[in-house]
Amino acid sequence: MNANLKFVSATATVDEAAIQPLPHSRKIYVQGSRADLRVPMREITQADTPASFGFEANPPVTVYDTSGPYTDPAAQIDIRSGLAETPRLPWILERDDTEALDGPTSVYGKARLADPALEELRFNLHRQPRRAREGKNVTQMHYARQGIITPEMEFVAIRENLRRKEYIASLKTSGPMGQRLAELMGRQHPGQNYGASIPDEITAEFVRAEIARGRAIIPANINHPEVEPMIIGRNFLVKINANIGNSAVTSSIGEEVEKMTWSIRWGGDTVMDLSTGRHIHETREWIIRNSPVPIGTVPIYQALEKVNGKAEDLTWEIFRDTLIEQAEQGVDYFTIHAGVLLRYVPLTAKRMTGIVSRGGSIMAKWCLAHHQESFLYTHFEDICEIMKAYDVSFSLGDGLRPGSIYDANDEAQLGELKTLGELTQIAWKHDVQVMIEGPGHVPMQLIKENMDLQLEQCHEAPFYTLGPLTTDIAPGYDHITSGIGAAQIGWYGTAMLCYVTPKEHLGLPDKNDVKDGIITYKIAAHAADLAKGHPGAQIRDNALSKARFEFRWEDQFNLGLDPDKAREFHDETLPKDSAKVAHFCSMCGPHFCSMKITQEVRAYAENGMQVKAVEFIKNGAELYTKA
Amino acid sequence: MNANLKFVSATATVDEAAIQPLPHSRKIYVQGSRADLRVPMREITQADTPASFGFEANPPVTVYDTSGPYTDPAAQIDIRSGLAETPRLPWILERDDTEALDGPTSVYGKARLADPALEELRFNLHRQPRRAREGKNVTQMHYARQGIITPEMEFVAIRENLRRKEYIASLKTSGPMGQRLAELMGRQHPGQNYGASIPDEITAEFVRAEIARGRAIIPANINHPEVEPMIIGRNFLVKINANIGNSAVTSSIGEEVEKMTWSIRWGGDTVMDLSTGRHIHETREWIIRNSPVPIGTVPIYQALEKVNGKAEDLTWEIFRDTLIEQAEQGVDYFTIHAGVLLRYVPLTAKRMTGIVSRGGSIMAKWCLAHHQESFLYTHFEDICEIMKAYDVSFSLGDGLRPGSIYDANDEAQLGELKTLGELTQIAWKHDVQVMIEGPGHVPMQLIKENMDLQLEQCHEAPFYTLGPLTTDIAPGYDHITSGIGAAQIGWYGTAMLCYVTPKEHLGLPDKNDVKDGIITYKIAAHAADLAKGHPGAQIRDNALSKARFEFRWEDQFNLGLDPDKAREFHDETLPKDSAKVAHFCSMCGPHFCSMKITQEVRAYAENGMQVKAVEFIKNGAELYTKA
Repeated sequence: MNANLKFVSATATVDEAAIQPLPHSRKIYVQGSRADLRVPMREITQADTPASFGFEANPPVTVYDTSGPYTDPAAQIDIRSGLAETPRLPWILERDDTEALDGPTSVYGKARLADPALEELRFNLHRQPRRAREGKNVTQMHYARQGIITPEMEFVAIRENLRRKEYIASLKTSGPMGQRLAELMGRQHPGQNYGASIPDEITAEFVRAEIARGRAIIPANINHPEVEPMIIGRNFLVKINANIGNSAVTSSIGEEVEKMTWSIRWGGDTVMDLSTGRHIHETREWIIRNSPVPIGTVPIYQALEKVNGKAEDLTWEIFRDTLIEQAEQGVDYFTIHAGVLLRYVPLTAKRMTGIVSRGGSIMAKWCLAHHQESFLYTHFEDICEIMKAYDVSFSLGDGLRPGSIYDANDEAQLGELKTLGELTQIAWKHDVQVMIEGPGHVPMQLIKENMDLQLEQCHEAPFYTLGPLTTDIAPGYDHITSGIGAAQIGWYGTAMLCYVTPKEHLGLPDKNDVKDGIITYKIAAHAADLAKGHPGAQIRDNALSKARFEFRWEDQFNLGLDPDKAREFHDETLPKDSAKVAHFCSMCGPHFCSMKITQEVRAYAENGMQVKAVEFIKNGAELYTKA
Repeated sequence: MNANLKFVSATATVDEAAIQPLPHSRKIYVQGSRADLRVPMREITQADTPASFGFEANPPVTVYDTSGPYTDPAAQIDIRSGLAETPRLPWILERDDTEALDGPTSVYGKARLADPALEELRFNLHRQPRRAREGKNVTQMHYARQGIITPEMEFVAIRENLRRKEYIASLKTSGPMGQRLAELMGRQHPGQNYGASIPDEITAEFVRAEIARGRAIIPANINHPEVEPMIIGRNFLVKINANIGNSAVTSSIGEEVEKMTWSIRWGGDTVMDLSTGRHIHETREWIIRNSPVPIGTVPIYQALEKVNGKAEDLTWEIFRDTLIEQAEQGVDYFTIHAGVLLRYVPLTAKRMTGIVSRGGSIMAKWCLAHHQESFLYTHFEDICEIMKAYDVSFSLGDGLRPGSIYDANDEAQLGELKTLGELTQIAWKHDVQVMIEGPGHVPMQLIKENMDLQLEQCHEAPFYTLGPLTTDIAPGYDHITSGIGAAQIGWYGTAMLCYVTPKEHLGLPDKNDVKDGIITYKIAAHAADLAKGHPGAQIRDNALSKARFEFRWEDQFNLGLDPDKAREFHDETLPKDSAKVAHFCSMCGPHFCSMKITQEVRAYAENGMQVKAVEFIKNGAELYTKA
């Protein structure tokens, strides 16, 4: 029995670390317009404020929750059975435009299913794959353009609003100071959104309109009913993606499923399975069946495995079969490097680091070997036909993205971007949802050009960027070199940020690295939301700052992105439980605390000192010149 | 014997981890115009490129080196004796404008020296403190304004240039492809510098002119002859500061000296000793005597200890004595919160987090208790007199900086900034060097306003900012929330970035946290240099990228900011030595590597494919429309 088989029989258990609710958090569901439309959120409860501060209650704060049923104590979790097919299956069925297939229709999918050697490794899926009925188009974009608001659209609308109105209302009724508290906690700095059009409240109709015009996507394959719908677009909260995937060198199925549940626990909005090793097909099935977030893949990786790693042996037929294989498993978006045109390839010869995208280099090699444009480009409309039969979204890959600061914004990169814009319009002709992948390595002063060109040339299709890394001199810290760039490009309009872990360029990320990457990118995405002035984005900052000021240590930890780490750091210096309610911290000690002094200043100022101070200003201005 | 005494007798040894040269690095000294002017730099040697790439030699890369004699195997290190008084002592003496004092002239300094209980704890300083002779002004600004180029100015000019010309020359002569190599490695993207005036080469005269007009400072107390001069100004490389310091709760002298040597090993350009606990005076002496970088302090912290923590008991006399005490020890810059005016204090009452600066809150409390402007403001010219007698630089403290996103850019903060601008002009009247401290917590869209107002109101005096943190929701990761803001404000014109460690808001940083803070801020500072288009900033990025592309793993590690971490991460997945020369890495494995494929593409493209590709373009454009 190999390690993978062992996984299935012995360790196919849920990762205990991933199913504990976060401290002082509970899963809530906001009811939509129909009984089966229940939108999950996380509610963080807080302690009351000591009476001396003038406020009493601190109503719970609602935050976006990507963790799915795992953090719901009421949910039955068994990764051998996968997640429940609700919420989406009834919605898909009642649209009555799909059909159940007898089984996988791809040659490869059939072969894997028929292979008895894979029996123990295989996820035990009872459900049949579905496909659009002949002549039907089952994409969210297609519905949106017909004016239909799907349950998926309503779901994401509710999800994006995060019960903001309810929170403000709860503040107002929290006590005698409620009105003042609501003004305090609801206040937010005006944003600079560089031409985004973010409404004060997201409605289902707004979601529909954004999808119809291609400015947002809901990646949700009809064969991934387990997904909790989410939306990617510049007028919505900035999202992040976590890459996982085994490679030829290391890692097993069990580890990858664990990385997925771990990723969503900390805030991964989508997960890309970039596996390149053995058992790609089976690994993917396990991941999708257990994933409440959209799963993306790069199908060319698997196609290459099918031709034993020889790029020149790839054919449209093999690739097409791979697309169908994966679409029938439920992959929600495909990275397709169709913009790597033959004429761009020689432009990369003068680069410092050539072509660093794996997909891009595979296609470049194919193009050169055959002296012709890639089958991804020549068969693009055929690919659209497949995408719309399952509602797989395009993530048009930037196969020529720069791999170094030196190569940033060069001819090859910008040429490909233009081609991606052309392909976007072709996809949209088929009502297929599209997002566009972007850099890479880009110094700060060149980041905005990337965003501006993408908006212009790709007609506001959502931008989905890797980093960008703003310097190359810090291997081991590329989550940070890139987090800096990610925050900025998110601010300028990028809809989803693909994380980079500390192991980038050096090795495969483990669970710690995945968490570091996720938290860094949650910071970048949130900093971008704040900078854009996304309505309500500042609520969590305000709540945490208030807890900090009031020495509510537990609340400060729990309102943060990583309560465990915050508590651990605090306890290193002051481990005692009593320190959690102490009105001081280890930085200054009990006799020397600026927060404490401020409270005194505030009390002092409010007790009539304001009048005195105002009087003082009149004379005070002259005081220095006299001295 | 208490823990501190134990430190002196038993553990007053050098930190072994801080004195190893970095891997494949050696200390070099660039000779200036006089024999005793030798500017330290670090040279990183590289392996040759495999012949298949077309280039041969990779000349060593020179990088800025803050680590002082510690990483010089030729230096004798004994922290009980401190560092050598060269380089600066002869320069100070030959200016013949200072006098040796019989001993400390401050009341407190004398008392500490006379206390037999401190015998074992005391650094054994034989040298007498110096002070300007009556009527003399010994600041670098004073010399600069008289047209004098000091050795310190020449030192920093050489240091800033980093042997860039020599490096490019060494590339040109590195082999038959040398000319092409020099073009490749010397190439850099144009920057966006927002009005900075960075010359292509830094001359000593340029340094003088910048100091004369107040746009840069060289913090270098005449009682800190051990310092290797460095410059802080928007037209120079962006610098970073590391805060260390014990507190009432924890930490000992030995740990603080270790944190200092550790900070400079990883790139701290200056170190602030923010100690607030017992033995502040002795701790500081040990740190300064062993520090080759400028040391900053916040004298009000110690003054407060002298009045048992009661802010209202502070007096000008106690504060003045503290300034003299510290100036005679050799502190290079003082944070002085003289901009906290009485009229600004009530403005903080409506804040979310009040006054978070410790110095600011102390002064606010004093102002309110006494109903008058602080002695820092009323005695500002007296302070200038002390500063110019030792050449201590002002770091005008932002006592009203925001402590939360909510409070960013408010009236109190911006009012104080304006006052700091007024104080700057008074200090300049005395030829005293000045930098201005800045935020704090600021969302991205409000960062530039901080920089623009500072430049305008403080007349381009160097800005020295803490972060800013761009969101409050990630306690445990505030090195990252603030690294994002630091990179941006550095780009906009900030001269020095004060680091934030992961422990910010939670606890006292240990050595790991100090390193994480430093590396994060080195990244931010370097990303800012790149974005500004600082001449030569891209050399290290280019060298590292080239090493990466050529699978020179060791060089990739060694050219990075943290070779140890990079190697450790790589070895986690591929520990074998053979993997260090392998033309693949753990991300993809040997059969699937985009870098490798790119090399093939490049070889392919260069063998005549370019012609074919160009021909193809003419027809290729039509290819899709036909399909």
